[in-house]
Amino acid sequence: MKRKSLKQAPCPVARALDSIGDWWSLLIIRDAFDKVSRFGEFQKSLGIAKNILAERLKHLVDEGVLEIRPAADGSAYQEYHLTEKGESLFTVIVALRQWGEDYFFKNKEKHSVLLDTKNAQPLRRIEVRAQSGRLIKSRDTFVRKVNGT
Amino acid sequence: MKRKSLKQAPCPVARALDSIGDWWSLLIIRDAFDKVSRFGEFQKSLGIAKNILAERLKHLVDEGVLEIRPAADGSAYQEYHLTEKGESLFTVIVALRQWGEDYFFKNKEKHSVLLDTKNAQPLRRIEVRAQSGRLIKSRDTFVRKVNGT
Repeated sequence: MKRKSLKQAPCPVARALDSIGDWWSLLIIRDAFDKVSRFGEFQKSLGIAKNILAERLKHLVDEGVLEIRPAADGSAYQEYHLTEKGESLFTVIVALRQWGEDYFFKNKEKHSVLLDTKNAQPLRRIEVRAQSGRLIKSRDTFVRKVNGT
Repeated sequence: MKRKSLKQAPCPVARALDSIGDWWSLLIIRDAFDKVSRFGEFQKSLGIAKNILAERLKHLVDEGVLEIRPAADGSAYQEYHLTEKGESLFTVIVALRQWGEDYFFKNKEKHSVLLDTKNAQPLRRIEVRAQSGRLIKSRDTFVRKVNGT
């Protein structure tokens, strides 16, 4: 889908989304967090057409979110791994997960869960807090725009 | 863009993204957090074609993220406001914003900032923490999948 580029937008949310690209890309990133690394594994996990997957992987490599590494087992496969920039999307993915858990599953409906390796416990809720530590809602904030926006 | 529905996916991230829909939708939600509420205001802010905007707004209303209200000033305009479900995306938008701030602006390049109404200070960094309170990276976690996924 062709769209307006927001690479020069003064809003960090816009640039972030411009870089991520689209809906598939966030699912690719989610899979990469789940240790998926090979083309065929992504394809199997996502049920996505090869050409679309290839394009999205290339985009994420170009954006520095993923990097290509030789296969860990010495085979000829290429592997895709999150860069530090990609790893930094962990907060976004966990926030999306918690929102998904809250609103899209019936009471006892099973879903995948993200657990602490140390004790297999769920993580804490992600919270937005002020410098002082108080909990912040959107209504407690305002956006200061820069000139010309 | 036609795509596979993930409404029944066992992964909360997938259902969350399925509901949000696409890239434009997250920018519409960002604008709604910034108190944008009318069709023409969204259009001006996003530079998006009317038919695409109308479709995305309808989708977000159908999904219960936005709701339509009569204009606050008594005029004939419709207004779009975040529901409680929509407001709950605040963590996602703030996480995207902080990632955007970290990676897409040169040292002194100006960008919009999200501030605490109380003292005009930036918010704290969003963090992922374990139940015990310790900081968690992706590598400290694992996903427990449900049967059949």
